Amino acid sequence: MSADTSSLAAALPDGMVITDPDILAGYRQDRALDPTAGTPLALVRPTSTEDVQTTVRWCHENRVPIITRGAGTSLSGGSTAVDGAIMLSTEKMREIAVDPATRTAVVQPGLFNSEVKAAAAAEGLWYPPDPSSFEICSIGGNVATNAGGLCCVKYGVTTDYVLGLQVVLADGRAVRVGGKQLKDSAGLPLTKLFVGSEGLLGIITEVTLRLLPPQGPASTVVGIFDSVHDASRAVLAVTGEIRPAMLEFMDSVAINAVEDMLRMGLDRDAGALLVAQSDAPGAAGAQEVELIRNAFETNGAGEVFATDDPTEGEAFTAARRAAIPAVEKLGSLLLEDVGVPLPSLPDLIDGVAKIAADNQVMISVIAHAGDGNTHPLIVFDPTDAAEAGRAQTAFGQIMDLAIELGGTITGEHGVGRLKKGWLPDQVGPDVMELTALIKNALDPEGLLNPGVIL
Amino acid sequence: MSADTSSLAAALPDGMVITDPDILAGYRQDRALDPTAGTPLALVRPTSTEDVQTTVRWCHENRVPIITRGAGTSLSGGSTAVDGAIMLSTEKMREIAVDPATRTAVVQPGLFNSEVKAAAAAEGLWYPPDPSSFEICSIGGNVATNAGGLCCVKYGVTTDYVLGLQVVLADGRAVRVGGKQLKDSAGLPLTKLFVGSEGLLGIITEVTLRLLPPQGPASTVVGIFDSVHDASRAVLAVTGEIRPAMLEFMDSVAINAVEDMLRMGLDRDAGALLVAQSDAPGAAGAQEVELIRNAFETNGAGEVFATDDPTEGEAFTAARRAAIPAVEKLGSLLLEDVGVPLPSLPDLIDGVAKIAADNQVMISVIAHAGDGNTHPLIVFDPTDAAEAGRAQTAFGQIMDLAIELGGTITGEHGVGRLKKGWLPDQVGPDVMELTALIKNALDPEGLLNPGVIL
Repeated sequence: MSADTSSLAAALPDGMVITDPDILAGYRQDRALDPTAGTPLALVRPTSTEDVQTTVRWCHENRVPIITRGAGTSLSGGSTAVDGAIMLSTEKMREIAVDPATRTAVVQPGLFNSEVKAAAAAEGLWYPPDPSSFEICSIGGNVATNAGGLCCVKYGVTTDYVLGLQVVLADGRAVRVGGKQLKDSAGLPLTKLFVGSEGLLGIITEVTLRLLPPQGPASTVVGIFDSVHDASRAVLAVTGEIRPAMLEFMDSVAINAVEDMLRMGLDRDAGALLVAQSDAPGAAGAQEVELIRNAFETNGAGEVFATDDPTEGEAFTAARRAAIPAVEKLGSLLLEDVGVPLPSLPDLIDGVAKIAADNQVMISVIAHAGDGNTHPLIVFDPTDAAEAGRAQTAFGQIMDLAIELGGTITGEHGVGRLKKGWLPDQVGPDVMELTALIKNALDPEGLLNPGVIL
Repeated sequence: MSADTSSLAAALPDGMVITDPDILAGYRQDRALDPTAGTPLALVRPTSTEDVQTTVRWCHENRVPIITRGAGTSLSGGSTAVDGAIMLSTEKMREIAVDPATRTAVVQPGLFNSEVKAAAAAEGLWYPPDPSSFEICSIGGNVATNAGGLCCVKYGVTTDYVLGLQVVLADGRAVRVGGKQLKDSAGLPLTKLFVGSEGLLGIITEVTLRLLPPQGPASTVVGIFDSVHDASRAVLAVTGEIRPAMLEFMDSVAINAVEDMLRMGLDRDAGALLVAQSDAPGAAGAQEVELIRNAFETNGAGEVFATDDPTEGEAFTAARRAAIPAVEKLGSLLLEDVGVPLPSLPDLIDGVAKIAADNQVMISVIAHAGDGNTHPLIVFDPTDAAEAGRAQTAFGQIMDLAIELGGTITGEHGVGRLKKGWLPDQVGPDVMELTALIKNALDPEGLLNPGVIL
């Protein structure tokens, strides 16, 4: 089936519907680069909720599926085209209004996370969630996946900051749920249902975010370890006592890849590196820094470096954020996002090493270690079909391992298309049926983001 | 219709099904004392998820509605019996396992909030949410209503602490959603959907709670104001700058009622009283105390009292918690729970005073002022039908006012039976339809907590 999009183009402002094949080609895939991506019928770039409603109504009438895309940075294929679908990109929905009096921001979904942070900061406020991709990922995508980041270990994930939403439903109606009030128990918790729903239940066209007073200056502690085991014991020693503002992990492959890229003098012989931060004020912060330093030293850190200088600290945070692009220079990546309850972190890291050896592929592990959320990066040569196959096998085995350890196949990226085969193993058939019941209730024709999760 | 419960009694352990009318009478109503409460067919007091499943399967087969009750402290009629229903009380489901390694607690729903706090504290940990009724309300009820409390202004509400649930669905199946992992984006956010669903979607039989390291010692600042207006401006002056650990409000009626009950020397001539706390450590805490003191003084506080002594501070927190029982001594109460975005707080308080005058009823306002959540307490003589009628009118007008100010009819108590008439005015017909779609998908026969929300 291939509907004629001219009636849609006529119903929307000039130029909003694009059918140029060259442009469409750039919107087929997201950063997961799913080779099974289809080709959309058209690209629509709305600027308002009304435009989205017009588009969804047209799709509803013509039984055309609709894929919502923010900035296209999904690592699990959450915004991958299917043949004959409308690709709805929110990239031109970029308004924001920060309200210092209620300490909230009302944001359109296409704004980058970094732009939300900047707009909040301009009013002396802070939007905490900070995916590593914060400079290139959209706030709408963050909400759709319940994105996390580095600060989550102390400050929580996206859902903790979403007070209200405007959502266009599968039949084109727009609803508002929640609002600027900080507490709201009126009716079913629909706001929370949409956060993390990966585009399956509706299209988010406006987000009301809770903001915080600005974060205090953070002190940074870096520990260099001979072994990943020592480092993961050090993580538990920290989180058993305090909530650090950040606690990140890189293994030797990541350290060397980052050093290749940034030349900042990281120890190439290290087995693992931890970067922790405390933003507790004054003497409490100094106490936390001491506690972290001790936890690192008594768990085998060969070298510990602490600084109160935000610029020095930011260099190490930037190094951690650079790990994915740096390792990506070694080959194509299959990027994992598995999480486990914290005490299982060493078992997960050991298990991943075994999976790498068994499959003869390189796997570099980086992690938001403080909350047990890891990103094993499987490196492979896409021109080597055998190696690519072994990488795929490892990808699945890592999810199997996380499930076995009582964890999750995705801590912050979402299930998308790449992980849906493993979701039933994690949650079981009854939860899958519950998921389908809710999906069918809200989108009986299955037009919203087909192929994702279910 | 009146099913014979003997087959249910036979399927459950001896004595678990109770049909003694004298005992049933005590389970008809909750603290909302809804006069339209029905009489249940039987009371079931399960001890395990399996008992709950057996009960729900029997109800499903016999088309018998089922009302879930925690400790029966609902103020909105969320656990009120209907004729011919099974009343399922979770009061005997009282197990808890605190796991310091993952900093979580796995809890059965019947435990009191205070018992969860105590079990966490025994392991050096902290469960923050603190409804005023924390010594007599159940954790299952807290989850079902997404309960709040005094610490929410800084530490959030119940949903922020729920990592996982076990839920018995309307057909008797038990599902697990979420778990001990701190971040989880796998599939639809079903855990969040059940928190605050007021028993409409399933029966919560186990909760996995996130715990925090213990709260630091708090300093307390009390401000005495001539007028509620000055006090509400002082609230905004505080929240515009910092997140206090507590910021509570009492008007003159509440002050005098508490003084009558506790004889602690509160100023009977005061127009309003604010109790704020800071738990920021060391110098940062001292700074916050100074900021609060200044905010109070520059906004008309006649007297400001600050203390670092936890016992002195707790006396004022206890006074605030005592406000509801104290005002209750003046007559029967209709207890409101409306919330507004913070800058509208003065308008809400003014409007409530006008509603009291218009309807010639006494309304005392207490509030979790720091998050805009207020509890206007409408005092009336239940033997005076005219006054009781005027109280009901005022009850509705306060909700109308909150909606007009962009707020919510319930910040933390839930809609229950008492507030469902106003829910459509707040959320609109499309959200009501969405609510019904989800309810029907999960409970097509409408057996779970009928009469609540919808």
